[in-house]
Amino acid sequence: MALIVQKFGGTSVGNIERIKHVANIIKETKEKGHDVVVIVSAMAGETDRLIDLVKSVCTEPNERDMDFVVSTGEMVSAGLLSNALNCMGVPAISLTGWQAGIKTDRAFTKARILDIDTSRIKKHLNEGKVVIVTGFQGLTEEGEITTLGRGGSDTSAVAIAVALNADRCDIFTDVDGVYTADPRVVPEARKIPVISYEEMLELAGAGSKVLQIRSVEFAMKYNMPLRVRSTFKPHDEGTLVKEEDDTMEKVLVRGIAHNKNESRLTVVKVPDRPGIAAKLFEELGNNNISVDMIVQNVATDGYTDISFTVEKNDADKAEKIARKVAQEIGAKDVIRDDKIAKISVVGVGMRSHAGVASKVFKTLAQYGINIYMISTSEIKISVVIDEKFTELAVRVLHEAFELDKQGI
Amino acid sequence: MALIVQKFGGTSVGNIERIKHVANIIKETKEKGHDVVVIVSAMAGETDRLIDLVKSVCTEPNERDMDFVVSTGEMVSAGLLSNALNCMGVPAISLTGWQAGIKTDRAFTKARILDIDTSRIKKHLNEGKVVIVTGFQGLTEEGEITTLGRGGSDTSAVAIAVALNADRCDIFTDVDGVYTADPRVVPEARKIPVISYEEMLELAGAGSKVLQIRSVEFAMKYNMPLRVRSTFKPHDEGTLVKEEDDTMEKVLVRGIAHNKNESRLTVVKVPDRPGIAAKLFEELGNNNISVDMIVQNVATDGYTDISFTVEKNDADKAEKIARKVAQEIGAKDVIRDDKIAKISVVGVGMRSHAGVASKVFKTLAQYGINIYMISTSEIKISVVIDEKFTELAVRVLHEAFELDKQGI
Repeated sequence: MALIVQKFGGTSVGNIERIKHVANIIKETKEKGHDVVVIVSAMAGETDRLIDLVKSVCTEPNERDMDFVVSTGEMVSAGLLSNALNCMGVPAISLTGWQAGIKTDRAFTKARILDIDTSRIKKHLNEGKVVIVTGFQGLTEEGEITTLGRGGSDTSAVAIAVALNADRCDIFTDVDGVYTADPRVVPEARKIPVISYEEMLELAGAGSKVLQIRSVEFAMKYNMPLRVRSTFKPHDEGTLVKEEDDTMEKVLVRGIAHNKNESRLTVVKVPDRPGIAAKLFEELGNNNISVDMIVQNVATDGYTDISFTVEKNDADKAEKIARKVAQEIGAKDVIRDDKIAKISVVGVGMRSHAGVASKVFKTLAQYGINIYMISTSEIKISVVIDEKFTELAVRVLHEAFELDKQGI
Repeated sequence: MALIVQKFGGTSVGNIERIKHVANIIKETKEKGHDVVVIVSAMAGETDRLIDLVKSVCTEPNERDMDFVVSTGEMVSAGLLSNALNCMGVPAISLTGWQAGIKTDRAFTKARILDIDTSRIKKHLNEGKVVIVTGFQGLTEEGEITTLGRGGSDTSAVAIAVALNADRCDIFTDVDGVYTADPRVVPEARKIPVISYEEMLELAGAGSKVLQIRSVEFAMKYNMPLRVRSTFKPHDEGTLVKEEDDTMEKVLVRGIAHNKNESRLTVVKVPDRPGIAAKLFEELGNNNISVDMIVQNVATDGYTDISFTVEKNDADKAEKIARKVAQEIGAKDVIRDDKIAKISVVGVGMRSHAGVASKVFKTLAQYGINIYMISTSEIKISVVIDEKFTELAVRVLHEAFELDKQGI
C-alpha cells in the first residue's frame, strides 16, 4: 500500500462528465489499496471568468480581493469531485487550502507556500477517506486567503506530496507527457519517457506549460518523483521526472521550448554607475514582478542599455516602474516590445559537449532569424527573437538536433 | 457616529452595475461618519446554479459537499463588493463566514449560528475599513464550512448586528418594505411603516419572503431594530421592525401572507396509542426536516389521521420517513399532496378581538374555497387550501379586513 498524490488540472475537471471520469480514476487507485490525496484545479475557464468579473468591477483590482474571489474556483471543483466520489460509495472529503493547513506568505496573487500542517489531511486519511484539496491557494499567518499564481495547483500537489512523504505524485493533465517540443508546432516531436528535474525545470522556465516551474523546483529540492500523465489515457505511463542518473538516455539536447508570453523592456542610455541595475530590479521585485532574462552589455561611452523580459501580464506594471526608475537615474528612455518569443534548447548533455550554442545560432541564421537577446545556463540556451518566427525556429532547431530520431 | 450593519440580498448584487450601486450606498453611509459592516448574499441565481451543479454530479448529494460548493457564491459577491469600494477609495475588506468568526452547529445546509467571535471584524473596523462579510455561512468547531439554509444571510446580518451591539440593522432588498399582502397578488396592498417582531415573525413563518424567520427571531430575542428597505430606493425609509409598543397603529389584522412552497403529508389510520406522533416527528427532526403545521384530530374508532406540512424541498425525504414510520407503527397509508397553499392572517389585534377566525372561514366559504387544515397562534390564523385558490383567497381576505383602507 502506497500513499499517492494525484493532481488534476482544469481541463481534467472541465465539466460534470469529466469530474465523474476523474472520480473513477481515483476510485481505481483507491481500490488497489492505496491512500489517495487529490489536488484539484478550478474547472477549465472558471479562473478566467472570475478574474474577468473582478476586473469588470475595477480595472486595477485590489489583489487581496482578487484572491478572495478567485480561490472559489477550486472550492467548486473540489466539492463536486468529493460529491462524485461519495456518490459512488468512495468516502471522500474536500478541503480548502486553509483547511488542508497550507500556509503561505502575503504575496497576493502569487504567494509562496511556507509550510503545510498535514494533521487534518492525515486525520481524514486515517478515517479511510480520499482527501480532495483545492490547489492554487493557502492562508497567511494573519488568516488571509492567498493564491499561488497561475499553475499553482502543481505546486500545491508537490508540496503536499513532500509534506506527507508520499510515495509518488502524479500530475494528470490534458497531455500525455513531456515532449521534445510542442507537438502542435512540431508534428515529429517525441514523448520523453524519463527526464531529470533540472531539464524539466529549464523546459518549464522556458515556456513548456506541462508543469509549473515552482512545482519542479519543489520536487527537485525534496527528490519527489513526478509523473506527468493524461487524464484521458490514465493507463499511459506518461513522463517520469526524477533525479538525473546513469539509466537515463544519453542525449545532447532533451527538448526545445518556446514562450510567446513575455514582453521585453529596454532601459536606454543608462549612466554606467554601480547600483543602477540593483535599483531597477529591486523596485520590480518589491512589486512582485518576476524578471526572466536580463541582458546588459559592456558600457562603451559611459552609458549602457539594460534589457529584461517579464510576463506580458506584468508588462504594464513593469513599464511604469521602469519609466519611474529611468527618470530617477537619468536614463534616456524605456522601449517596450510585446511581439517577442523566447526559444530555449535544453539538455544535460550540453554540460560535456561544446558546440550546442554555435549550432543554435548557425541554424537560426541559416533561416534569416535575427537574435535579439541571448541567455545561457549550464544546460540551456535561450534566445529572444521576433514573435513571427517562433514556429519556424522551433522546427528547424528540432530538426538540427535530430530530436525526432532519438531512440527510446 | 453609529455602528450600522447593512445587508444586501442577491438581486441587490445581481450584476456588476448593481454591485457598484451598492458600493455607493455604503460609501454614502460611511461618509456620514458611521462604521459600516456589510453582509452580502450571493449574486442572484448563483446559489441555484451551484446547487444544480452539485445535483448534476449526484442526485442525492452529500450535504457537506453541497455547503462546501454553495458557500463560494457569497465569497464572490463579497470580494467583488470589497473590490468596488477599494476602487472608489473607500478602504474595505471582505471576510468569509469563518474569517468573521461565525461559529455554527453541524447541521449542513441548514446550520444554526452558535456564537460569533467579533474580534477580527472589530480589528478591521478600527483600521477604518468597511467590513464585508459573506452571509449565509459559518464554520463548525471541527473546521467544516456550513451554510445556514435559504435566506440565511438575513440571519447572519442580525446575528452580527447583535454580536457587535450595532445601532441599527438595515436589510436592503428588492422590495421597499413589508406590505399588507404580496403586491403582485393584491394591487391595493399597502406598505406597513412599523411592525412588531411578533407580527413579522408570523408573516415570515407564513410565507412572506421579505425577511427570513430566524433573523426575526434573533432580532426579537436581542431587541435589535431591523429596517427593511429597497436597494433601488435607498432613501425610502421602508418598514421598521421593532418591539411592539403603544405608538404602533392599532389594527386587528396587520397583513396576509401566502405560501405555495409546502407539501402536505397525511399518515392515515394511525393506531391511537401514546408516543406515536412523537416517534414520527422525532425521526423527521433527526433528519433536519422542519415541520410547519401539524393537525391531529380526536380518535373516534381507535385510529386517527396525522397531517403535517413540510417544505416542498424536504417532501421526498419526509415521505420516505413517514412511510417507514407508518409501517413500524401499523398505520394504513401515507398520502401526499403537493398542490396546496397556506394562507395566513396576522395581527396583534387578534389577541383582544374575537371573531377574526370566523370572519376568515366565512369569507373563504362565501367564495367556495374549501379548507383542508387549520392552525392558529395567538396572533395568527393559517389555513391550508387547494393551491389553485391561492390568489383569490388572499384578495378576498385583504378586502374583508379592509387592509387597503387603513390610515398610516
